[in-house]
Amino acid sequence: MAAHAALICVDLMSLQSNGRTRPQARSFFMSQALTQRLLAELEALVLIDPHTHINPHAAASKTLADIMGYHYYTELAHSAGLPKARIEEPGISPKEKVGRLVEKLGEIDNTAQFSWLLEMCAAFFDFKDDRIDASNWERLYDAAEKRMSQPDWEQQVLKKSKLEQVYLTNDFDDPLSGFDTKLYVPCLRTDDLVFHFARPAVRERFVKATGVEPGDAASFTAGIGKLFKHFLSRGARACAISLPPDFEPLPVSPLAMDPILKAIATGKELSADEARTASRFTFWTLAQHCREHRLPFDLMIGVNRRVYEDGVYQGQDLFDQRTSLILYRRLFNDFPEVTFPVSVLSQVANQELVSYSWIFPNVVTNGHWWYSNIPTFIELDCRARLQAVPKTKQIGYYSDMYKLEFALPKFGMYRRVLAKILAEDFVIGRGWSEQRAIELGKLNLRGNVETIFGR
Amino acid sequence: MAAHAALICVDLMSLQSNGRTRPQARSFFMSQALTQRLLAELEALVLIDPHTHINPHAAASKTLADIMGYHYYTELAHSAGLPKARIEEPGISPKEKVGRLVEKLGEIDNTAQFSWLLEMCAAFFDFKDDRIDASNWERLYDAAEKRMSQPDWEQQVLKKSKLEQVYLTNDFDDPLSGFDTKLYVPCLRTDDLVFHFARPAVRERFVKATGVEPGDAASFTAGIGKLFKHFLSRGARACAISLPPDFEPLPVSPLAMDPILKAIATGKELSADEARTASRFTFWTLAQHCREHRLPFDLMIGVNRRVYEDGVYQGQDLFDQRTSLILYRRLFNDFPEVTFPVSVLSQVANQELVSYSWIFPNVVTNGHWWYSNIPTFIELDCRARLQAVPKTKQIGYYSDMYKLEFALPKFGMYRRVLAKILAEDFVIGRGWSEQRAIELGKLNLRGNVETIFGR
Amino acid sequence: MAAHAALICVDLMSLQSNGRTRPQARSFFMSQALTQRLLAELEALVLIDPHTHINPHAAASKTLADIMGYHYYTELAHSAGLPKARIEEPGISPKEKVGRLVEKLGEIDNTAQFSWLLEMCAAFFDFKDDRIDASNWERLYDAAEKRMSQPDWEQQVLKKSKLEQVYLTNDFDDPLSGFDTKLYVPCLRTDDLVFHFARPAVRERFVKATGVEPGDAASFTAGIGKLFKHFLSRGARACAISLPPDFEPLPVSPLAMDPILKAIATGKELSADEARTASRFTFWTLAQHCREHRLPFDLMIGVNRRVYEDGVYQGQDLFDQRTSLILYRRLFNDFPEVTFPVSVLSQVANQELVSYSWIFPNVVTNGHWWYSNIPTFIELDCRARLQAVPKTKQIGYYSDMYKLEFALPKFGMYRRVLAKILAEDFVIGRGWSEQRAIELGKLNLRGNVETIFGR
Repeated sequence: MAAHAALICVDLMSLQSNGRTRPQARSFFMSQALTQRLLAELEALVLIDPHTHINPHAAASKTLADIMGYHYYTELAHSAGLPKARIEEPGISPKEKVGRLVEKLGEIDNTAQFSWLLEMCAAFFDFKDDRIDASNWERLYDAAEKRMSQPDWEQQVLKKSKLEQVYLTNDFDDPLSGFDTKLYVPCLRTDDLVFHFARPAVRERFVKATGVEPGDAASFTAGIGKLFKHFLSRGARACAISLPPDFEPLPVSPLAMDPILKAIATGKELSADEARTASRFTFWTLAQHCREHRLPFDLMIGVNRRVYEDGVYQGQDLFDQRTSLILYRRLFNDFPEVTFPVSVLSQVANQELVSYSWIFPNVVTNGHWWYSNIPTFIELDCRARLQAVPKTKQIGYYSDMYKLEFALPKFGMYRRVLAKILAEDFVIGRGWSEQRAIELGKLNLRGNVETIFGR
Repeated sequence: MAAHAALICVDLMSLQSNGRTRPQARSFFMSQALTQRLLAELEALVLIDPHTHINPHAAASKTLADIMGYHYYTELAHSAGLPKARIEEPGISPKEKVGRLVEKLGEIDNTAQFSWLLEMCAAFFDFKDDRIDASNWERLYDAAEKRMSQPDWEQQVLKKSKLEQVYLTNDFDDPLSGFDTKLYVPCLRTDDLVFHFARPAVRERFVKATGVEPGDAASFTAGIGKLFKHFLSRGARACAISLPPDFEPLPVSPLAMDPILKAIATGKELSADEARTASRFTFWTLAQHCREHRLPFDLMIGVNRRVYEDGVYQGQDLFDQRTSLILYRRLFNDFPEVTFPVSVLSQVANQELVSYSWIFPNVVTNGHWWYSNIPTFIELDCRARLQAVPKTKQIGYYSDMYKLEFALPKFGMYRRVLAKILAEDFVIGRGWSEQRAIELGKLNLRGNVETIFGR
Repeated sequence: MAAHAALICVDLMSLQSNGRTRPQARSFFMSQALTQRLLAELEALVLIDPHTHINPHAAASKTLADIMGYHYYTELAHSAGLPKARIEEPGISPKEKVGRLVEKLGEIDNTAQFSWLLEMCAAFFDFKDDRIDASNWERLYDAAEKRMSQPDWEQQVLKKSKLEQVYLTNDFDDPLSGFDTKLYVPCLRTDDLVFHFARPAVRERFVKATGVEPGDAASFTAGIGKLFKHFLSRGARACAISLPPDFEPLPVSPLAMDPILKAIATGKELSADEARTASRFTFWTLAQHCREHRLPFDLMIGVNRRVYEDGVYQGQDLFDQRTSLILYRRLFNDFPEVTFPVSVLSQVANQELVSYSWIFPNVVTNGHWWYSNIPTFIELDCRARLQAVPKTKQIGYYSDMYKLEFALPKFGMYRRVLAKILAEDFVIGRGWSEQRAIELGKLNLRGNVETIFGR
């Protein structure tokens, strides 16, 4: 990151003088340099990315299509008018796909997502233009392909992105073999178990993965225990799930689950009531296993799936802002031994997240998720968290990436917001030394990841 | 707008360097001039105002009472303690009315709404004071009346406000004659059809306007078709409706609507269920006609009518923030061919609007409505939209005005916020050229209006 | 507060030129001095604190444990991992308690709440360090104890904090004797009456306080009247209540209340329906008495009690953001003569509060409550209120304190935010004179408290 001369917005009113004279007051006029210094320190930090969707067998991109095929670009291009059929046409080459998406980049070049793309192209492929269009995309595509075909491309990306560890989100029946689990750390994704277990294919995968026939609550629970043991034997650091806005976890008696599991075994379709009961029973059982194995349980709260059914792949989900952490009241009370890193999809839920983390020892704030992952929301949310949640209970950021190259621009975006807040609110606003602000930033970006997921 | 020397808040951290050196970095210290330059370009732009309540037969004000009688002033004065009976006393002269409202201006002079008033008085009547009170209001009133009585006052206002076209909001039975529909563009307002069709007077107006006796769903639908044809023959550019927070559009079978229309015909009062069914049927029918005629359907979501029943005229409506665009899921899916410019009344609904516009090709963001139309909310909302919604899918602003004079201060307010964001987030933050930022601003202020409503 | 040189963020775009040249434009470069000047004027103002939980018989702290025992510190320390049993162990000395809490201060030193602590220690005990830890806390504790043991400590705190009057929140059966009610002004807290009257102990206290056996609605109402008369005879300035997010006040017939009061008299447990009916009847009766006695009714909306049942004392309450002022529609309409100062716990409810205060003459905005009382939320909320609510209808701030020492840092935090907004939005943004901005600030901080609670 080149050093830019800039005049930072110094918020005088957040100056929380404690009645003491402060030597740094004189340096306010040099605050642009201050922010740059903080940012440089944060940029020097080697990262652990605590939530991604990386496939450890194909972590880096092979062509620009792997990057631009990310749903952020396909869905925005589609939103801007590119037909789904053109984007997802079977059999088109990666280059053809990129070419089609490029047609619409000019209409989405205002977005933060586009700025990530440009930042990746600049950082990884020495791309110097400020637009990607018909005139230059093929050159870019070819240059990118050349780089990406280098045998150590994955290592280059990790190094340039300063990534030391990348947490995964693995299906419950993932064998977790054939990759370095010290680098790519397994996490147990449980959406299928909680919300789709009635699907024959899911149940079948469960039987295959566990060797257990889930005929009743006891055997189902035992099977889940086997999944945990498998994941833990491979160094898993978290159990994770994404949840719809209206989900309310509550305990369910095994006696209520038994007939439902029997119905599932016979392929009977569940009623809405039965489906909810099953989800609750499974969720609660997962929490119990997290407690037993002292595994953090990542809750990603608030997504409605397939709202836009004709949307592109992974571009169909939205949300209902009418949700509340009050739905998790019983869970947070009943599992004081389980740490719950919570992400909220709706920005308006951030104050609840701040307040619940401020009160519940086992609730910690976790990153800036999806529709809340743009600078204007990150700044509001991060600032409130830093003002009201114990500093040891904040996981600053995760990339949520599908391909390794995205960590660089996404963490870059977050670090810039974080450095700004540290400079304005802490060094200038509260008279902290730069060193102290940097320590807070590092705790937020990395230290807490180690502590919270460190087991 | 005079050029003010000012020191803009330069947000260093939003500097999204793409690893390239940027020549404009040196100009940060001159950023106040930058913002002024952007603003000047936006101010030079000739506007189309895509949503107003202008009466084309009396578009401009005749006295200051036409301006200060706007509900923004009467309701604020009433809120500050001026009795409704004094404001709405039958038979008082316009001057008397203004005199009474002036009593309370000192208590609302902090508001953005008051600043519009002052800006209008300065721009149109050469008023140079910074307050309007007992000492100067009569002079102002008389000066305004003199100006307003000039035969070309309407043209003066249009010219000074740089207004090329003004979209209307017409009752469904408006003859749409006697005015220049190229200047004052008709739009079909459908609240009465959807929510008040059971009122005998509304039904009667329908019969009169269409020549159709709406005895069943088929004839009712045919009648609506006639309304569309009439409006389209007069150059209508949109169908529009305001909706309560709990409205959920869903398709309804004509068979379910038939008996309800029969009940309405006999003057029978509808049950709550019947009323909801009728609203849904009518709404869905409107969407079908919008599809057929390729007319955008403006949705203004979230208003509860007559919450404060003793409030002044047009000052009785409020809202319930507990609403969600998830209620429109089926609509957005079923009508991919219809463009829905969506306004939300509640500021907390803006993130949903951003996200739904980011995903659904047929949802576009539309202005800053009513209780969200103050600078602090506009800045948050506009910034998020520019960061996450394709730039071609954002209708920056409409005035919602009842009298022509309001476009000047309202668009002025918006342009200042927009120029600030363009300077901070795009020119400084992302290294865009000024020209490129100005183009984005012009697209937002005008270009998209042409494209989206251009038919 | 020492004068710090600082460079204020000058928001050029909010410059609302009215087409006039403005002499202050040149002073933008000196805006840091401007903000300091405004702040100094606000800091010189003698305050009335319109909502606290002060015990007038022990208003000031006796040891640092009285300060650090405040739930803000115990709950944050607990949230950071300090076991409740260590914090609330019976029999530990105040010094031991502080020592235990100090262990966790290093993990919460980022919070606004910690900054209040540091500011109190600096202002009252000449504490000059920027941390409180194992190395210095005992020295601090002893120094504080020494100061606090001075016979006029309470007066010193009042003077240093520039507090002229402190409103209390008294139980309904408080004798209100033995203290200066001109300094410590009684307010009638009614949570117990509305939500816990079925508890035998509460009913008993009612009988004792009123001499009335509440056997039916008429006698209950009469008893409540006695409470009002008692409070009014002691100079009470408000009736106050905190309310859960789902409470909807509605009138209830005395005939519906009679059997419930009979059931309560016999110790019968109420059904959920009966409990709601009782709460509504009592609440409505309180509003009627407020009307009769022209007493403002403070509504503190949105708290769920005992969400975290194992939390520390007073650290168990949270909220559900899904609430709306629409629930108060009937109340606000039916009691135009009663002023309702409204606080909302959820920050996302602030726009509703702004809008309802803008429309309803009897609704005024009241402070920044609890989970919304951090600088980032205060700034958003205060800015919106100043932009859209009549300036005479805004009670800027109350401390909500349990011990006198907290007024200083809490009002300090608010004044810094307020001065920033006055400088940016009014002096610079709208060209107001400094004097005019200061007057607005003083009205907001004090003048409106006098008018609204002045009776």
